[in-house]
Amino acid sequence: MRIDKVDLFYLAMPRVTRAADGTQDSVLVRLRDASGLEGWGECDASPLVTIAAYACPPSHGNIVGLREVLVGERLETPADVPRIGERVLREALDIEHAHHALSGADIALWDLLGKRLREPAWRLLETVEPGPAGSGLAAPRPKLPYASVLFEETPMATRERARALRAEGFEAVKLGWGPMGRHGEAFDVALVEEARAGLGPGARLLVDAGCAWGEDDEIAWRRARAFAPFEIGWLEEPFLPDAIAAYGRLRRRGPAVPIAAGEGSNRLRFAEDLLENGGVDYIQIDAGRIGGMTAAFRVRRLAERRGATYVNHTFKSHLSLAAAIHVFATAERFELLEYPAGGSELSRALVRDPLLRGRDGLVRAPDAPGLGVEVDLEAVRRFVKPVRIEVAGRVVEETPRV
Amino acid sequence: MRIDKVDLFYLAMPRVTRAADGTQDSVLVRLRDASGLEGWGECDASPLVTIAAYACPPSHGNIVGLREVLVGERLETPADVPRIGERVLREALDIEHAHHALSGADIALWDLLGKRLREPAWRLLETVEPGPAGSGLAAPRPKLPYASVLFEETPMATRERARALRAEGFEAVKLGWGPMGRHGEAFDVALVEEARAGLGPGARLLVDAGCAWGEDDEIAWRRARAFAPFEIGWLEEPFLPDAIAAYGRLRRRGPAVPIAAGEGSNRLRFAEDLLENGGVDYIQIDAGRIGGMTAAFRVRRLAERRGATYVNHTFKSHLSLAAAIHVFATAERFELLEYPAGGSELSRALVRDPLLRGRDGLVRAPDAPGLGVEVDLEAVRRFVKPVRIEVAGRVVEETPRV
Repeated sequence: MRIDKVDLFYLAMPRVTRAADGTQDSVLVRLRDASGLEGWGECDASPLVTIAAYACPPSHGNIVGLREVLVGERLETPADVPRIGERVLREALDIEHAHHALSGADIALWDLLGKRLREPAWRLLETVEPGPAGSGLAAPRPKLPYASVLFEETPMATRERARALRAEGFEAVKLGWGPMGRHGEAFDVALVEEARAGLGPGARLLVDAGCAWGEDDEIAWRRARAFAPFEIGWLEEPFLPDAIAAYGRLRRRGPAVPIAAGEGSNRLRFAEDLLENGGVDYIQIDAGRIGGMTAAFRVRRLAERRGATYVNHTFKSHLSLAAAIHVFATAERFELLEYPAGGSELSRALVRDPLLRGRDGLVRAPDAPGLGVEVDLEAVRRFVKPVRIEVAGRVVEETPRV
Repeated sequence: MRIDKVDLFYLAMPRVTRAADGTQDSVLVRLRDASGLEGWGECDASPLVTIAAYACPPSHGNIVGLREVLVGERLETPADVPRIGERVLREALDIEHAHHALSGADIALWDLLGKRLREPAWRLLETVEPGPAGSGLAAPRPKLPYASVLFEETPMATRERARALRAEGFEAVKLGWGPMGRHGEAFDVALVEEARAGLGPGARLLVDAGCAWGEDDEIAWRRARAFAPFEIGWLEEPFLPDAIAAYGRLRRRGPAVPIAAGEGSNRLRFAEDLLENGGVDYIQIDAGRIGGMTAAFRVRRLAERRGATYVNHTFKSHLSLAAAIHVFATAERFELLEYPAGGSELSRALVRDPLLRGRDGLVRAPDAPGLGVEVDLEAVRRFVKPVRIEVAGRVVEETPRV
């Protein structure tokens, strides 16, 4: 089959705030072949900038918009997906935004191909890069979902939030961003202490500093030590995404808790750099940013080879969550799954069949063809913001009717 | 003063081809204060994607469009420019395209501030990051311009091109892209041999492979050896921009000629990674991509500390060339300047006062306030492609009349 049509949809809640809540809007990529078979993907990216990367007129041989590259491409076997992705990145070599934009198309390609071949994406992905002999499982392994939410504005409210999540049955919880890092050490420690108190002993507590300390490895090292008594599973993003040198310094000092980072990785090298030179223990990859499931899968392989732990970053809908879990469904050692537990109505309504926790509390990769989740067109209609772009009077983008 | 207005202009030639010629279109950023004083900058980036990064509605606290961050910002002292840039990158943390987009604004900020303070940008830039004592010159040092053109389709035509550039008085010439790497070793060597024959002995010959060999350090090592007899000053971009591991492998093998790379650096870490882990001899930075003159200046300092050589990448108009030369005007050791010698009518018409070679063949940083070049509004009017973007019926971008 060939890619016949590439459509973009900008969805948003009626009101968007400045909270670090990535579920307030979304951009979806829909790929169609001539028979009308569809694949869907979601980027964790600015919708308008992403749409522009698909629709932009070419500037020269190294700036060609993604739609132009994708339309007419042949999609028959799993090897076609990385081949198409490489072609996109080559023709969009000088479009910085190419990786964020490609992410949605790559996910949609796996969805579409899986539907065509009647195979779940996790099985097809194994062909991207073979693992060491005996490393892959023949069936997906259930993952332990950690509820991923923002810190509340006070330690006491954070305690209540943690308690409520535990009551919902979560065995692992991550709190992040919000006031962390804004009011000094005592406040930061109180946030973590109360999170642990609310969660109770036994459950896993993960802490996301939300880039709070810039490049300051001294503060990060001290916070790691101060948080350690509350038995946190990791300290995430103490630094800005680019601060590889700071991650390296922290590693050499020997932090008191494991360090996690990587959600900002918008190309494979970024993740590789964090692992090789930043020395992180957990590498957190968003398939909706790094260039799709293909690039995310390559990071999984890199982590397997290096003995680091791969974990998804997901703060969008369950369309993104499905893309995320397929990438490492067959990896036995990587057991944690970031699981959006709050999120906007948009993010909750987007697929008809969200990935619910089983009775054992675990989440399984769908075994249906492609991603195994179905986009609810009614939700798309409800939240879509039609985009129209004209350049010199010519319409280069117009959102189709759903 | 405060930034009162942020305008974007998409310029393009009537016909855009797929040649690796970045002068076929352009995107300009114009910043204005309340008094009407203006600063201009140019990005080497996709115009439409860049405009979308300025105009996009916010998605959450980490995706805020650049115009919204810039309007109302205070600009009084040189320290304000990096401060504003950091704020942009923080509020646009999850917009991959932020660095390409910021580049134009950062350049325009230096232009505007220079005009306000009646100082050339090269003098103001020294405040970004002090160099080692005695390292900076009190006055700009003239640079040796190398004519930067594409390889012709045959070795013979390349010989004629090189000969013509020498006849125009260029003491240094770079040829790149085109057929290099497409027809095997004998053809590649013939291109370089004939370039040298056309140029004659004595003049500097630089070779740009245009990412021809992907990640294959074996081919790159062999080409370096095969090109060495023709006394080339460097072999540029043998690999794709992300292939840091391949650059590192080539370095460890000991290539027969110096290696240059870096034009794809769209963030400071990218250049740092190439220097630290790729081991390149020449680091080539485009101020129109990496986040502006501020980020480029930081790479200059990094190169000074590491003993590597900084050189500009410029393949746009002389507005970009002016931005480029100010960054390293006071660096004594960095003597080469990439100088667009071909280029479209648009790129040649854009400023009224291009940076011509002096009678000694050298190029000097302007000593006038700001960038020291004046955008020709007539050229902007002639080449502008008005952009109009609507989201859910609301106009979020409309190119103003010039």
